[in-house]
Amino acid sequence: MFKKTVFMLVRSDLLAQNRAMSNVGFIGMGNMGAKMATNMIKKGSKLKVFDVVESAAKSVAGATVCKTPQEAATDVDVVFTMLPDGHVVKDTVLRADGITKGIKKGALMIDCSTIEPKHAQELSAIAKDNGYRFIDCPVSGGVTGAAAATLTYMIGGSKDDVETARPYLLQAGAKIFHCGGPGAGQIAKLCNNLILGVTMAGTAESFNMGIRAGLDPKVLTDIINVSTGRSWSSETYNPVPDILPNVPSSNKYDGGFMVKLIAKDLGLAEAAAVSVNSPLPMTAAVHQLYRAMMNHGLGDKDFSVIYQFLQGKKP
Amino acid sequence: MFKKTVFMLVRSDLLAQNRAMSNVGFIGMGNMGAKMATNMIKKGSKLKVFDVVESAAKSVAGATVCKTPQEAATDVDVVFTMLPDGHVVKDTVLRADGITKGIKKGALMIDCSTIEPKHAQELSAIAKDNGYRFIDCPVSGGVTGAAAATLTYMIGGSKDDVETARPYLLQAGAKIFHCGGPGAGQIAKLCNNLILGVTMAGTAESFNMGIRAGLDPKVLTDIINVSTGRSWSSETYNPVPDILPNVPSSNKYDGGFMVKLIAKDLGLAEAAAVSVNSPLPMTAAVHQLYRAMMNHGLGDKDFSVIYQFLQGKKP
Amino acid sequence: MFKKTVFMLVRSDLLAQNRAMSNVGFIGMGNMGAKMATNMIKKGSKLKVFDVVESAAKSVAGATVCKTPQEAATDVDVVFTMLPDGHVVKDTVLRADGITKGIKKGALMIDCSTIEPKHAQELSAIAKDNGYRFIDCPVSGGVTGAAAATLTYMIGGSKDDVETARPYLLQAGAKIFHCGGPGAGQIAKLCNNLILGVTMAGTAESFNMGIRAGLDPKVLTDIINVSTGRSWSSETYNPVPDILPNVPSSNKYDGGFMVKLIAKDLGLAEAAAVSVNSPLPMTAAVHQLYRAMMNHGLGDKDFSVIYQFLQGKKP
Amino acid sequence: MFKKTVFMLVRSDLLAQNRAMSNVGFIGMGNMGAKMATNMIKKGSKLKVFDVVESAAKSVAGATVCKTPQEAATDVDVVFTMLPDGHVVKDTVLRADGITKGIKKGALMIDCSTIEPKHAQELSAIAKDNGYRFIDCPVSGGVTGAAAATLTYMIGGSKDDVETARPYLLQAGAKIFHCGGPGAGQIAKLCNNLILGVTMAGTAESFNMGIRAGLDPKVLTDIINVSTGRSWSSETYNPVPDILPNVPSSNKYDGGFMVKLIAKDLGLAEAAAVSVNSPLPMTAAVHQLYRAMMNHGLGDKDFSVIYQFLQGKKP
Repeated sequence: MFKKTVFMLVRSDLLAQNRAMSNVGFIGMGNMGAKMATNMIKKGSKLKVFDVVESAAKSVAGATVCKTPQEAATDVDVVFTMLPDGHVVKDTVLRADGITKGIKKGALMIDCSTIEPKHAQELSAIAKDNGYRFIDCPVSGGVTGAAAATLTYMIGGSKDDVETARPYLLQAGAKIFHCGGPGAGQIAKLCNNLILGVTMAGTAESFNMGIRAGLDPKVLTDIINVSTGRSWSSETYNPVPDILPNVPSSNKYDGGFMVKLIAKDLGLAEAAAVSVNSPLPMTAAVHQLYRAMMNHGLGDKDFSVIYQFLQGKKP
Repeated sequence: MFKKTVFMLVRSDLLAQNRAMSNVGFIGMGNMGAKMATNMIKKGSKLKVFDVVESAAKSVAGATVCKTPQEAATDVDVVFTMLPDGHVVKDTVLRADGITKGIKKGALMIDCSTIEPKHAQELSAIAKDNGYRFIDCPVSGGVTGAAAATLTYMIGGSKDDVETARPYLLQAGAKIFHCGGPGAGQIAKLCNNLILGVTMAGTAESFNMGIRAGLDPKVLTDIINVSTGRSWSSETYNPVPDILPNVPSSNKYDGGFMVKLIAKDLGLAEAAAVSVNSPLPMTAAVHQLYRAMMNHGLGDKDFSVIYQFLQGKKP
Repeated sequence: MFKKTVFMLVRSDLLAQNRAMSNVGFIGMGNMGAKMATNMIKKGSKLKVFDVVESAAKSVAGATVCKTPQEAATDVDVVFTMLPDGHVVKDTVLRADGITKGIKKGALMIDCSTIEPKHAQELSAIAKDNGYRFIDCPVSGGVTGAAAATLTYMIGGSKDDVETARPYLLQAGAKIFHCGGPGAGQIAKLCNNLILGVTMAGTAESFNMGIRAGLDPKVLTDIINVSTGRSWSSETYNPVPDILPNVPSSNKYDGGFMVKLIAKDLGLAEAAAVSVNSPLPMTAAVHQLYRAMMNHGLGDKDFSVIYQFLQGKKP
Repeated sequence: MFKKTVFMLVRSDLLAQNRAMSNVGFIGMGNMGAKMATNMIKKGSKLKVFDVVESAAKSVAGATVCKTPQEAATDVDVVFTMLPDGHVVKDTVLRADGITKGIKKGALMIDCSTIEPKHAQELSAIAKDNGYRFIDCPVSGGVTGAAAATLTYMIGGSKDDVETARPYLLQAGAKIFHCGGPGAGQIAKLCNNLILGVTMAGTAESFNMGIRAGLDPKVLTDIINVSTGRSWSSETYNPVPDILPNVPSSNKYDGGFMVKLIAKDLGLAEAAAVSVNSPLPMTAAVHQLYRAMMNHGLGDKDFSVIYQFLQGKKP
């Protein structure tokens, strides 16, 4: 039944892409935002973009570069934000030349940043107070998914707003999950990423032990991947160099999902968990390992480098 | 390429099953052993069985019940053991009426118990000293796999001995991995199970947080299972009641892989890791959680009950 | 040399107490605040008190009860706050009838709450913007220390402001540490409390193991207390019932430092640590244990109840 | 009452030292053993010593060097052992030229090694079977305590055997605790050392955070040492360089209690805890940190070097 549902989502998604696109504002032209914006332009949207680093905004071919968030939010039906954290998003909304100063009544703000769920709820309330609409819409799929327009979106907000957002989202991504009310998209994202952080660490320590005890890394991979220990981390993103091609572990742990970024997400997860009193013992344990790794100079490496950290090695 | 290899394994395995079976000794008629023995008998082997609890041995229809390990090991080409731990296996081998007293020169002992790798190496050395052969051959697949004859075997020992064992093994299981020399089967088993213990805990704490924060359990499952957090634990053995049918979490956490048994395996993994100086921070963290759960009366429940333990609930 | 310094502090402190006291405002008449206020009144100060629960304010004999924080802050040289968290303190300062509306230029606000260091820094900045002075001044010593006027103060702020505060502080406490600029008092408090949380847990698990293995609890206490494992937790606040009189463990774990409060402090410590990238692996581990204990119904018990939690018992 | 007891112990101890000493065997002339043996000789005992490294045995001035454990155990009333682990002790007892071959009926073997409690119990049983007596008698106080003859002994065995041992023990140490029957000395030692490992780590992470957040290390030390976070680790063995003189942290973390040795003890504690089902979550967490530190090249440094490991530094 699950597969059928997904199929239907995809069907309606394809239809949605054919609707005419209005102009779009997009604020935050970092690694992710610039790729998403580029894909939207390729699919026919007209984009007004802003970044605090003007050269970043200018690098997006075909976009109109704005001087302020206010300007990017003016005269558009939809404003995207893709920013480092909730404080930056709030500031971008509330500053003197911020989104609230430009956005028209009834327009939709789509925040694709990964931020604290409570910040998403605050942003939703600010939107309501100012007469516009808001969904929190963090993505998974990373830089690769952004480049290939295969991102998955996890959305918190009203059903109507999700439908409004859908055709825009599908220009830069592939799957859409409506998770619940304001903040629910962030919660879902954090729920996924904490499992990811924990499972990668468990996988790394297992392979380290097995290989040191004499097992062939590929044989061990074959065993794990047909057994109860299998996961995305072992099958698709193996932390041991040269098991899989085209993953960070086979490329000196460059590219991918940086240690400092998963550490940030795990911290957000812990903060969110406190508010619903849900213990996260494994998350907390691995979070601190990633924090220690940052002090060991590994903050900008892919998080699967924990495999080498356990051995006292550096890539 | 991996899939091709597996296919070829299966092909040769099917052929192997057609060879005539000699008589087999089987020691240890617990939950797993009795099911394996029953399958072997169904497939045409003649079994001599022993258990310290005579009624357990008698419960296996069609087997010849023996009074001692020595008797079960006498006049057979292959002796299986499926016992609680390495000390019991060693005692069963060395006691006054033990395996060494009955086994003939050149016969093969197949130990399917999960034990410390170093105990497996000691048992291999004892076999050599006494003129018989030995492989460590722990299984995965649990009670369900044993009943359905779909077990996976992870083997440490010589290539020749694996080939000798193959037709017998395939009477009670489906997949065979030759992992390396003596003890390598145990190492591989522990490597898998430690990931399992860690990943299940991470999955449980994620779902607990998400559901408490208001997410629909099924929507969250759908998201995780197409995202980087997916694993055997989320897809096949979800710890949240009523997501999947026929898993322990939907049956009051009865059946399945008991907390006290995964705790045992995690302890074995830690001991093995020390000998090759491989830190297991996540394994150690979750091991102690399972130990605490035993004191909270959950030792006989399936290990996915950690989902409820985090909430302070009991099934 | 350290002892000498402390002695001198105490000497000058005694002298300070003899100065004439101006009127004092005190906001927050909870367990701690009410006891501190009572001691100040006994020592001769005139207090204007406020609490959101008016009955709490009225329970302090000899104090003038105010209707708003603004009123309590009006016409006094010093305003104390002792509140649950940084958000409450900020609200008490900034609300329409808050402290900033009443406090006179140059007066000193002394916040004795335990809050995030960054909130303390924000409060210091608010004070500066509004022409009054601020120190963060969390206390240690608990309810017992508050009752006995033996609290220790850890202060962040300027040297001059510490001197202004000194005579007031000594009416309700005994030791004063000037830790550094704004927020430094909070940092010091959190540094102490995280060691406390970790050490108590380690002590509890040690005693649990030793006693279960057959050691006499008092003999084990004697050994630990003359050995390298000794600490405040083993010597003064032993978690095993009936080793020490007058500690929570000998009183069904009632009274003392509640699990939910140390959990709060550990969360604050982790948040502060992230901002200076200092891994807290042990703190994080024990924090999550305390969070789990809250779900097991132990949130209002003394934190030494972790000794029983490990055993699956409840007081 | 405790202090009185200790006083009386000391009184009777002093008297005991005046008794005439018989000849003593001492096996294991490592860092600890050689210093203990030297002190015994200074106090008037005649020693027969053995070590697998003959030069180590020869370095002890005034001792008779033996060629085998058997020889060292022959014709003496008391045989000491101070060896790396339980397997070595058992081998030294049971080998063809081992202790059992030389020791006379009724003589007392005193094992000062830190070993698994169950090994101590096995050694006690071997002694009984062979007609001699045995106590497990691990020490605390380290190399410094051994040099200064101020060691503390934690003993498992019969009261009579403790009294027999007392005068010998006091030649090389100062305090004696009779902890219970066979193995109880080892349990007590492990109970102490696990608190030590946990508390040191908590103290190190606290100081790291505080100092990075701007606190003065000495001020923070002063605060902790009069507060609830104080312990042997903060008062006597502070992990921050240059707080205390003459501790490893002020000497590049050389000397002291090596990371690899506390890691060994924590592993023994975990194994012992499993047998009495006592969860050790904090012990397990810090154990794996020390294991990781060994891979980072810190195995031979003092365990307080965890302070630097958290920062990504090396001494």
